[in-house]
Amino acid sequence: MSSAYTRPLARLIERLQRLPGVGPKSAQRLALHLLKQPDQEIHALAEALLEAKQKVGQCQVCYHLSAEPVCDICANLERDNQTICVVTDSRDVIALEKTREYRGKYHVLGGVISPMDGIGPEQLTINALVKRVGATQSKEVILALSPTIEGETTILYLGRLLQPLTRVTRIAFGLPVGGDLEYADELTLAKALEGRREL
Amino acid sequence: MSSAYTRPLARLIERLQRLPGVGPKSAQRLALHLLKQPDQEIHALAEALLEAKQKVGQCQVCYHLSAEPVCDICANLERDNQTICVVTDSRDVIALEKTREYRGKYHVLGGVISPMDGIGPEQLTINALVKRVGATQSKEVILALSPTIEGETTILYLGRLLQPLTRVTRIAFGLPVGGDLEYADELTLAKALEGRREL
Repeated sequence: MSSAYTRPLARLIERLQRLPGVGPKSAQRLALHLLKQPDQEIHALAEALLEAKQKVGQCQVCYHLSAEPVCDICANLERDNQTICVVTDSRDVIALEKTREYRGKYHVLGGVISPMDGIGPEQLTINALVKRVGATQSKEVILALSPTIEGETTILYLGRLLQPLTRVTRIAFGLPVGGDLEYADELTLAKALEGRREL
Repeated sequence: MSSAYTRPLARLIERLQRLPGVGPKSAQRLALHLLKQPDQEIHALAEALLEAKQKVGQCQVCYHLSAEPVCDICANLERDNQTICVVTDSRDVIALEKTREYRGKYHVLGGVISPMDGIGPEQLTINALVKRVGATQSKEVILALSPTIEGETTILYLGRLLQPLTRVTRIAFGLPVGGDLEYADELTLAKALEGRREL
């Protein structure tokens, strides 16, 4: 397809196609859209790309993406240092922060245990988590992992590892707010039943 | 949302969100994916962006996107110079080239006549087309525009303008190959009926 386009354009389309969720058609659409933008827009995008890649690393404490050695959340003295919420990746931190409900710290695992993909506990930041729980004398570790097979495996593993050191909880699963019972899948309904509470 | 991300990352997300079809969630996903790529991938993408923007302009003859003053198709002496296929934009050229059926030249209008959007004949490359048809003594101008209201208006307009100069045709509309009659919309079916041919 790209052969019919002039070389520099074909190259851009080929590059855009490597992005997740971008097929040949959308790569084409994106490239033609970009060509129509003013020079400064394109330079700003290219710069944002290079700058983010160059400056953004991981927080030394919680492994959240950060441009500083220690991220804003870890550096915030007003947040509860003895509650650690364990998540799969940085996206989950952002999702939880948006609720404005949580005032503790985070720990980003960098994935979940998945032997099929060759991801064992050593590939994750689990050692650092255990050290951190000990060093900060954590009062609670909240496991906020998705209820997939790999998530559950990781929750079991972390529970066994951390329960001797602190209180370990996991977030609730059930019907989403505004969700219709009729359309919920069986697993969610089972979880919702299992997690029922007194009125 | 982006406030919770470290600044350079928030800036990248914000930039990606300006792309067509990229919402806040996909911008986030793209940005986090990009951060995980090796440095050289990111540099290659940024370079492809800047190079395409800098080098790609329009062919002086047909207005197809081109890095040279005259595009490969117009410069190809083996192609029929007296047949011009008129299309809305460069994407249509690529789509038609992929059929490997057409051996004439193209003319990219840059849009269709749409008074609602303030696009009249002057905003398109229609003057250049008329001059070109005269200069090359065209034998046929094929109008390959979509059968939308704006497309039909443009076809009518071009027909009236070009019929005194040359033969003007339009591409056929009907059931797509492999398409199921049951699922075709009424307009397509009407066009298919209207365009029926002897067996």
